[in-house]
Amino acid sequence: MQRYFLEEAYQPNTRFELSGEAFHHIVRVMRMAPKDQVYLAFNDQVSIRAEITEISEDTVYLSELEKEKSQKELPNNITIASGYPKGDKLDWIVQKGTELGAHGFIGFPAKTSIVKWDAKKRNKRQERLNKIAQEAAEQSHRQIAPQVELLESQQALFDRLSAYDVLLIAYEESAKQGELANLAKVFQELTDGSRILAIFGPEGGLAPEEVEAFVEKGGILCGLGPRILRTETAPLYLLSAASYQWELTH
Amino acid sequence: MQRYFLEEAYQPNTRFELSGEAFHHIVRVMRMAPKDQVYLAFNDQVSIRAEITEISEDTVYLSELEKEKSQKELPNNITIASGYPKGDKLDWIVQKGTELGAHGFIGFPAKTSIVKWDAKKRNKRQERLNKIAQEAAEQSHRQIAPQVELLESQQALFDRLSAYDVLLIAYEESAKQGELANLAKVFQELTDGSRILAIFGPEGGLAPEEVEAFVEKGGILCGLGPRILRTETAPLYLLSAASYQWELTH
Repeated sequence: MQRYFLEEAYQPNTRFELSGEAFHHIVRVMRMAPKDQVYLAFNDQVSIRAEITEISEDTVYLSELEKEKSQKELPNNITIASGYPKGDKLDWIVQKGTELGAHGFIGFPAKTSIVKWDAKKRNKRQERLNKIAQEAAEQSHRQIAPQVELLESQQALFDRLSAYDVLLIAYEESAKQGELANLAKVFQELTDGSRILAIFGPEGGLAPEEVEAFVEKGGILCGLGPRILRTETAPLYLLSAASYQWELTH
Repeated sequence: MQRYFLEEAYQPNTRFELSGEAFHHIVRVMRMAPKDQVYLAFNDQVSIRAEITEISEDTVYLSELEKEKSQKELPNNITIASGYPKGDKLDWIVQKGTELGAHGFIGFPAKTSIVKWDAKKRNKRQERLNKIAQEAAEQSHRQIAPQVELLESQQALFDRLSAYDVLLIAYEESAKQGELANLAKVFQELTDGSRILAIFGPEGGLAPEEVEAFVEKGGILCGLGPRILRTETAPLYLLSAASYQWELTH
C-alpha cells in the first residue's frame, strides 16, 4: 500500500487532506479512487491507514481507518554523518541507510574528502538526497522520512554535536588494533530514546587530528569487525547491528 | 598492502612463487621490486606477510616474514543464496557481501525472478562476479576470496542443501507477522565452524510454495527487523548482524 509523509504532527481528525505532490501521485500516477486505501505517516512517528473519501480538483480527502500498530522505527535515533565521499556513494548511503532505519543523514567535508561543492551545487544535491530518502522511506514502510543535510564546513558539524547524547566514531584503526567491543557495549547500555550521531570518514578515512577532535568532544571510537569496510558499507553495518541488538535480541 | 589469493593450502616453504595474473599485477601494475612486501592468502584461511626476494621474467619469488595474526573470517561460514534479481544488483550483493564476510554466493532462478540467462550468459556472468568477489576480498583484507556459483535451476539449489548445517530463509512475511527472534536465536546458539545457507528472494520475494519447500528441508524463517528491505540490502543486514553477534559481543 502507498505511503505518504506529512510535515505535521498527528491530530485526531474527521478528515485528512492531501494536495500538491501527494495529490498528483495519488490521482495522476496511481489513479486511485474513493474507497482506495493509503498510509499517512506524520512527522511525530504516528502513522494511520486511511481511506480516500473524495477527490476534488486539487485535494484528496481521506478518513482514518486505524492507527498502524507495529513500531517500525528504531528505539534510538541514529544520524549518519559521512565525510563527503566520491561519486554517487552518498546516494547509496542515504537509500540503504533509510531502509535500515537511519533517523537522518549529514554530509560534511572531511580532511581527505576530494569533492568540493559550492552552495548551489550542495543545495541541489541535498534536495536530490532528500528525495531519495523519502522514496526509500516509502518503500521500506518507515514511519518517518529521514532528513538529509549537507554541511559547508566541518565546524558546522562540530556546532551540532551537542544535539546528540552519544557520539560514535567509526575508525578503521580501531579495528586493526583489535578493538571489537565498544559498539556492542554502547548499543547494549543505551536507554531507549537516545540520539546517536555516528561519524564515518570518506574513502581516505578520518585524519588522526579529526579523530582526536571528535574524541575530545566525547566521541567513542568503534571498530566494525575485523574486515575493512568501504565508506558506503560501514554505515549499513552499524545500522544493521543496531537493529539486531535492539529489535531482534531479547 | 596488496593481497594475493592462492588456490592452494598453506605449506611452510623457503620460497613462494607467483606467476600469471598476480605476477602481472605485482610487476607491471604495482611496479614492485625485491624487498617490497605483500600478503599471500591461501585457500585454507592461512595468510602470511611475505617479502619479494627475486623477480624473473615470469615469476615473482617471495619469502615468508610472518603469519598474519588476526582472524578476519567469520567463525561460521555464511553462504548467501539470492533468487536472481534484476539489473546489476547481484554485483552489489557480491561486492558488499564479500566486504561483510560472506563465505560464498549462489544465484538461483526463483519463481518470481524475471531474468533468464542461458548457459553461456550465466558462465560469463559468474566469471565477472567471481572477479568482483576477489577484488572486494583483497580490498577488505579477507583471508579467503568467496566463490560465486550461478545455478541453472532451483532443483540444483535443493541438491546442495545437505552441504549446510543450518538453512535460513529471509522472509518478509515473517517480519510483517512480528517474528523478530529467530535470527538472534540461531546466531546465539551456533557452534563455531557451522555452515549456514541464507536464502533470499528476488524483488518479488519468495513464493509461498518455495518457502514451504525450503521449510520442509529444515529451513528456519527469519525476519530481519520491522522495515521492508530490498533484495540487495537484506543479505547485508544478515551478514552485519552475524559479525556483530560473533565478533563484537562477548
